[in-house]
Amino acid sequence: MSQDRETHRIEAFSDGVFAIAVTLLVLEIKVPSRDTVLSHGMTVALLELWPSYLAFLISFITILVIWSHHHWIFAAIRRADLVLVYWNGLLLLFVTFVPFPTGLLAEYLLHPDAKVAASLYTGTFLAISLVFHGLWLHASKQGKLLAIDATTSEHENAMRITSHYRLGPILYFGAFGTSFITEMGSVTMCLLLALFFAFRGWPSDVGTNESSRIGTWWAKG
Amino acid sequence: MSQDRETHRIEAFSDGVFAIAVTLLVLEIKVPSRDTVLSHGMTVALLELWPSYLAFLISFITILVIWSHHHWIFAAIRRADLVLVYWNGLLLLFVTFVPFPTGLLAEYLLHPDAKVAASLYTGTFLAISLVFHGLWLHASKQGKLLAIDATTSEHENAMRITSHYRLGPILYFGAFGTSFITEMGSVTMCLLLALFFAFRGWPSDVGTNESSRIGTWWAKG
Amino acid sequence: MSQDRETHRIEAFSDGVFAIAVTLLVLEIKVPSRDTVLSHGMTVALLELWPSYLAFLISFITILVIWSHHHWIFAAIRRADLVLVYWNGLLLLFVTFVPFPTGLLAEYLLHPDAKVAASLYTGTFLAISLVFHGLWLHASKQGKLLAIDATTSEHENAMRITSHYRLGPILYFGAFGTSFITEMGSVTMCLLLALFFAFRGWPSDVGTNESSRIGTWWAKG
Amino acid sequence: MSQDRETHRIEAFSDGVFAIAVTLLVLEIKVPSRDTVLSHGMTVALLELWPSYLAFLISFITILVIWSHHHWIFAAIRRADLVLVYWNGLLLLFVTFVPFPTGLLAEYLLHPDAKVAASLYTGTFLAISLVFHGLWLHASKQGKLLAIDATTSEHENAMRITSHYRLGPILYFGAFGTSFITEMGSVTMCLLLALFFAFRGWPSDVGTNESSRIGTWWAKG
Repeated sequence: MSQDRETHRIEAFSDGVFAIAVTLLVLEIKVPSRDTVLSHGMTVALLELWPSYLAFLISFITILVIWSHHHWIFAAIRRADLVLVYWNGLLLLFVTFVPFPTGLLAEYLLHPDAKVAASLYTGTFLAISLVFHGLWLHASKQGKLLAIDATTSEHENAMRITSHYRLGPILYFGAFGTSFITEMGSVTMCLLLALFFAFRGWPSDVGTNESSRIGTWWAKG
Repeated sequence: MSQDRETHRIEAFSDGVFAIAVTLLVLEIKVPSRDTVLSHGMTVALLELWPSYLAFLISFITILVIWSHHHWIFAAIRRADLVLVYWNGLLLLFVTFVPFPTGLLAEYLLHPDAKVAASLYTGTFLAISLVFHGLWLHASKQGKLLAIDATTSEHENAMRITSHYRLGPILYFGAFGTSFITEMGSVTMCLLLALFFAFRGWPSDVGTNESSRIGTWWAKG
Repeated sequence: MSQDRETHRIEAFSDGVFAIAVTLLVLEIKVPSRDTVLSHGMTVALLELWPSYLAFLISFITILVIWSHHHWIFAAIRRADLVLVYWNGLLLLFVTFVPFPTGLLAEYLLHPDAKVAASLYTGTFLAISLVFHGLWLHASKQGKLLAIDATTSEHENAMRITSHYRLGPILYFGAFGTSFITEMGSVTMCLLLALFFAFRGWPSDVGTNESSRIGTWWAKG
Repeated sequence: MSQDRETHRIEAFSDGVFAIAVTLLVLEIKVPSRDTVLSHGMTVALLELWPSYLAFLISFITILVIWSHHHWIFAAIRRADLVLVYWNGLLLLFVTFVPFPTGLLAEYLLHPDAKVAASLYTGTFLAISLVFHGLWLHASKQGKLLAIDATTSEHENAMRITSHYRLGPILYFGAFGTSFITEMGSVTMCLLLALFFAFRGWPSDVGTNESSRIGTWWAKG
C-alpha cells in the first residue's frame, strides 16, 4: 500500500463521522408542542427555543473547526500505526457523543441545574481537546508518522504545531472550570473558543506576516 | 498538495452533509398514531399527512438543487482559502438546519400560526441563497480562487455565473415576504423556485442555443 | 473534466444517500416500553416485534439490491446530462422515503388496516422500479450517455440490460396489486423479489453458461 | 474496470454504513426528563444513565474494531464476486442492527429481564463474528478473490488470517452463553473482547517479534 493510502481511509471514515455528527445536531431542536403554540403563540414558542439554537450553533461550529484542524494535522501525518488508529477512534468517540450534551444543554440551560449540563458540555469539548493533543503528540513524536524524508523545516513546523495545540486543553479547561460558576459564561467561552480556533487558522502560518497568508494556508497544509 | 486536492476534501465533506440532511428529512414524517388510525381509518390518516409529504418534497428538491449548484461552482473554484472554508461552513450550517423548519411546517401548515412557520421555512432558504451568493462572490472576486491560468473566457464565464446567482436571493426574498401574507403561496413559491433552479441549469449555458445544450452542460462544469 | 469524473460525484452522493437510508431503518425498531416488558416479559415483548424485524429486513435487502444495480448501470453510463441528474434525484427521493412506509408497516402489519400500509410499502418499491427503469431508458436511449466509442457489443449489451430491467416494474406492480388482497402475501413477494434481483445478478451474464459466471460479473460491470 | 476498483465501491459503501451506525448510537442516550431531574437532581440523573454510557461505549468500540478488521481483510481481497457482495451485505445488516440491542441494553440493564437484553446484545455480536468469518472464508478459499498473482507467502498469510479470525465466533459464543447466567458478566466480556481484538492487531504480525511491529502493521495490510 502506498504512503498516500495509509492514512486515506482513516481520514475518509473520520470525515463521514464528522459530517454525520454535525448533521444529527438538528434533531435536538424539537418542534414546539401544540399546547405551547396554543398558549404562547408560534413566534414566542420559537423564540423560547433559543437555548436549542445556541447549543446547535456552538456545537456545529466546534465540530466544523475540529474537522478543519483534523484535516490539517492529517495533511502532515503520512503514516499510520495502530496507536494512531485508536487515538483517532477516541477522538471520534467524543465527537459522536457531542449531540447528547448538546441536547442536554438545550433542554436545561434555563433550569436551576444548568451548571451541571454546562459542565458536561464543556467537559466533552475539554476531552476532545485533550485527545486531539494526544493524537498529535503521538504522531509527531520523533517525527515518526510524518513523511519519512521529513526535512528539518518540516520538523520545526511540527514543533510549532505542537505548541499551537497545547493551548486548546488549557483554554477548554478554563471553560470547564467556569461552568461551575456560571453556565452562560462557560457556554459563551465555548462559542468564543470555536471562533478563535476557526480564525486562528493553521499553525504553520504563525509568525509569518505575508499579506497572502490566509490565501495560502490551505496549500501549505 | 496539488491544486485538485485543495478543494477536494471540502467538497467531499459537503457532499456528506448534503446527503445526510436530505435523508434525515424523512424522520419528520411521523407514522400516524393508533388513535388516529382507529378513528379516521388508515387511508384518511395517511392522506391527512399531506403537509408532511409536501414539506419533505420541497426540502428534498431544494437541498438536491443546492447540491447540484454547489457541485457546479466548485468545479470552477480551484483553490481554497480560510474564508472560503467558513463561507462553506455557514452554508452547511443552514443546510443542516433545514430539517427543523421542515418539521415545523409539516406540523403547523394547517394551523392558525402557519404563517410564522412558513416565514421560518422560507427565511432559511433565503439565508441559504444569500450565503451561496456570498460564497461565490468571495471565490470569484478578482478570480483569485479560480484556476491560476484562468483564461479571459473563464473570467467572463465567472461574471455570468455571478449575475446568474444574483437572482436567487431576490426570488427567495419574494417567497419570504409572501409568507407574511399567505403561507400556501410562499410554500408553493419555494417548490416552483426549486424546480426553476433545477431546470435552469448551469449558467455557462445561458445565452447559448445549441440543441445539445443540456447534453453537454455537465462536461462544461 | 474527464469522462470518468462526469458521473463520479453523482455516484458518490447516491452512495451516501443509500448508506444513510439503509442505516436509518433501524430507528423504526422501537425498544419495547417498560409496561409491555412488565406484563408480557422481555422475551415475548421482543418476539412481538417481529413485524418490525421483517420490515427492517425486507427494506434493508431491497435498498442494498437497488444500490448494487445502481452501481452496475452507472458502470455502463459514462456521461451525465441534466435529465440524468434529475432522474437520479427522483430515484433518491423514493429511496430516502422508504423508512416511512417501513415504519408504518412495522407498526400496522397486525392491524385491521394493514392492507393500506402494505399498499404504500409495495407502492414505494413500485415507484422505485419505475424510476429506475426510466433512468436507464434515458441513459441508454440511442446510447447517448454510454461511452462515446461504444462498440456494437456494448450497444447489444445495453439492449439486454433494458429488457432485463423491464421485468422490475411488472413484478412490483404484481406485489402492489396483491396488497389489496393480502398484506402478508404482498410483503412476502417484496422479500422474494429482493432476493430474486439479488441473485439474478447483472444482465450482461444472462444467456451465458460459463461456470465462472458469478466469479467474473463484477469485472464485466 | 481495474482490479483496484473492483472492491473499491464496496469498501466505500461499507465505510459509510459503519460511520453512520457508529454515530447513530448516541441517539440511544436519552436526555433525562424534567421529572427525573427535579426529583433526583441533574448530577444523579446523569449518573443514573451509566447503562446508556456503557452500552454506547461498548458498541462504539466494537463497531470501530469491526471497521478496522474490515479494512484489513479488504486490503487482502483484490476481486469481488456476487457472493462476496452478499456476505458483506449480511455483515452490514447486523452492523446497522446494533443500535437496537444497544438501546435495549441501555434501557433494561438494571431490570429483572436484563439477561434477555444481554442475550440479544451479545447474540448480535456473535452473528457479526460468524458472518465476518464466513466472508473471509469465502474470499480466501483457494485464494480465489486474493490477488491473481498471489505468492506462496500471501497464501500462507491468508491461512494465518483464517486461523486468526476463527477465534472470534468462539469467544463471542462464550459471551452469548454467559448472558444466560449473568448480564453484567457477558457485557463485560463484550468490552474486553472489543479491546482484545483492537490491540491484537492484524494477524500477519502474529508470531513476529519485531519491535517495530505495531509501527508497520498498517503498511503490511
